[in-house]
Amino acid sequence: MTKAETMASNPVRVAVVMAGGSGERFWPLSRATRPKQLLKLASGSETLLEEAVSRIAGLIPEKRIFIQTSAELRGVIRAALPSIPPENVLAEPCRRNTAGCLVWAAAALQARFPGRDVSMAVLTADHRLDQPDVFRATVDTALSAGEAEDALVTIGISPTRPDTGYGYIEAERASLATGVARVGRFREKPDAETARGFLAEGNFFWNSGMFFWRVSTFFAELKLARPEMAAIGGRIAAMLAAGDEASAKAEFERLASESVDCALMERARNVLMVPGTFPWDDVGSWDSLDRTRREDRDANGNIAIGEPVLIDCKGCIVYNESGSARQAVGVVGLENVAIVTVDDAVLVVDKSRVQDVKRIVEELKKRGSGKV
Amino acid sequence: MTKAETMASNPVRVAVVMAGGSGERFWPLSRATRPKQLLKLASGSETLLEEAVSRIAGLIPEKRIFIQTSAELRGVIRAALPSIPPENVLAEPCRRNTAGCLVWAAAALQARFPGRDVSMAVLTADHRLDQPDVFRATVDTALSAGEAEDALVTIGISPTRPDTGYGYIEAERASLATGVARVGRFREKPDAETARGFLAEGNFFWNSGMFFWRVSTFFAELKLARPEMAAIGGRIAAMLAAGDEASAKAEFERLASESVDCALMERARNVLMVPGTFPWDDVGSWDSLDRTRREDRDANGNIAIGEPVLIDCKGCIVYNESGSARQAVGVVGLENVAIVTVDDAVLVVDKSRVQDVKRIVEELKKRGSGKV
Repeated sequence: MTKAETMASNPVRVAVVMAGGSGERFWPLSRATRPKQLLKLASGSETLLEEAVSRIAGLIPEKRIFIQTSAELRGVIRAALPSIPPENVLAEPCRRNTAGCLVWAAAALQARFPGRDVSMAVLTADHRLDQPDVFRATVDTALSAGEAEDALVTIGISPTRPDTGYGYIEAERASLATGVARVGRFREKPDAETARGFLAEGNFFWNSGMFFWRVSTFFAELKLARPEMAAIGGRIAAMLAAGDEASAKAEFERLASESVDCALMERARNVLMVPGTFPWDDVGSWDSLDRTRREDRDANGNIAIGEPVLIDCKGCIVYNESGSARQAVGVVGLENVAIVTVDDAVLVVDKSRVQDVKRIVEELKKRGSGKV
Repeated sequence: MTKAETMASNPVRVAVVMAGGSGERFWPLSRATRPKQLLKLASGSETLLEEAVSRIAGLIPEKRIFIQTSAELRGVIRAALPSIPPENVLAEPCRRNTAGCLVWAAAALQARFPGRDVSMAVLTADHRLDQPDVFRATVDTALSAGEAEDALVTIGISPTRPDTGYGYIEAERASLATGVARVGRFREKPDAETARGFLAEGNFFWNSGMFFWRVSTFFAELKLARPEMAAIGGRIAAMLAAGDEASAKAEFERLASESVDCALMERARNVLMVPGTFPWDDVGSWDSLDRTRREDRDANGNIAIGEPVLIDCKGCIVYNESGSARQAVGVVGLENVAIVTVDDAVLVVDKSRVQDVKRIVEELKKRGSGKV
């Protein structure tokens, strides 16, 4: 076998869990140094990041699980994940959106495994996932497809409702039956009527934000879609391989800030999708607890965590972090309001306005508050 | 002069500030050992009780200002009012409503001033009052009328709106011009239409809950209205005069629990009313801050105390006790909601439901919570 053949046939499989988000929409629980992925939002017992790591650890050993985060969060995340080798917690030097994040990860992995091709499973840390066995089987299928076809592969979640909060992937019908579909188009978040149409069509899936590819494929496709980004990525890989991290960081700062969907996935020629049938939920803002914490729901549709007293309330979310021992919470006569109390802050928000919680964070920053 | 003439012509004037209420409707700021009258609800700088005492101190010296409270609160109130002689803080042995409270006060005063008649100004500690000079002149008029006419006298507040939250006093029109009116009838809290009618009539006043009488008149009228209560009161006075507080307490427990309006004022023959034109406001529940803390109101009608961040809110009351240094409070997209945060508790209540805050207290008591 030539060297090229070895690389193609025998890539190193790794997982890269993206964990750089700041999660201001989960204020006051999320903070600059305690972002969403470090909160126990889904199960209540593990953080979203711990769940993401232990979920994939059944398929990929921890020594090949990488975390891609920001420089600010690297220390916190190393401390939070003692079973992951500290050198596997990668940090992009500055924020350059998801395309930048994955250019850095791909370059770092290329430098880490010299002479080998790397097959990356790019996973998220801000979703709730059930049925981990089904998930791992789906990841395995997606990795294999990426490796065999030199393709960019994603997982499309089989939709269970006409959700308007997710982007959609339109799969080519003919290929769908094989289990690995060709992607027709990526679709932006639809309005309600369009979403109902998507659901009725049967070949529309939720964009999971998970990606699977060989590093060689990623750079090859990026060279076609965004040649300048690919060139920067190549130089970063060489600098990191030479141990010159300072130059790599300076090079990274020159990258445009773009999402990987926009920069690469929507432009590439060879994009595949594996349907994901496991339950999946974006834990995007406080109202998502209605779905992810169903087990805490009472007869009036209230999610009550931390022993609050609710009188004549409907559809409220009350999250009292430390429980009633520290701070008693009493609520009377409210509908569809989310209330969150933590040690040093309180949030009260109409559930239809949870996206605007970040405006509180902005205002507190302006005031010089330490509660952000 | 005979002894009877001396008593009639030269009574000792005292103030009795009623301060026994538990104020559960101000939870979580009010607690079992920190009731409403000990909160800085009106001015923000003095407690309601401190305001009540300093208001009357311009007319009656502090050594003749008495506080009537419960046994549980006596210690707290003595500590809170160091300028009042501790023996002036009277405590009824158990709760017997306002009639019981005033029977105990009258008996205690009779024992305290042997051989003298006492002219009592019975004042409240749970209202906001402005224009203290006008208030004191009104009290002086009411005391003088009670002393001269051997009457039970009250202050009727000139209404400024058709409020449905107060009881009303119907004054006899003919006597109104003299400044001391005969009371026609006491009226219960009216519905909105009736309240508008009262306002239009011009001879209806808000029942202030303040009373002025000689102790001798009080017992004489009580003997006609509720002979058994008067008899118990007479025995308590004798027991207290003899220093037998234990027997007095046992005797008090035999009293029926009734309001002074019901037991006495609505039944007595000789009842007068002095109109009060000073601004007066019942600080009864959280929504009353809309009136009493107008100076903290923003352009959207929100009362914001303690530096909360309000985004797109209207008509909300946000009371962050310790200010943003301890706990940041952020509110988005709410209308007419009251939010109160204290060190160990948080309240969120629709403003139309503030009367039901006491239901939270009931539930917390059931749960054995210490936050009541």
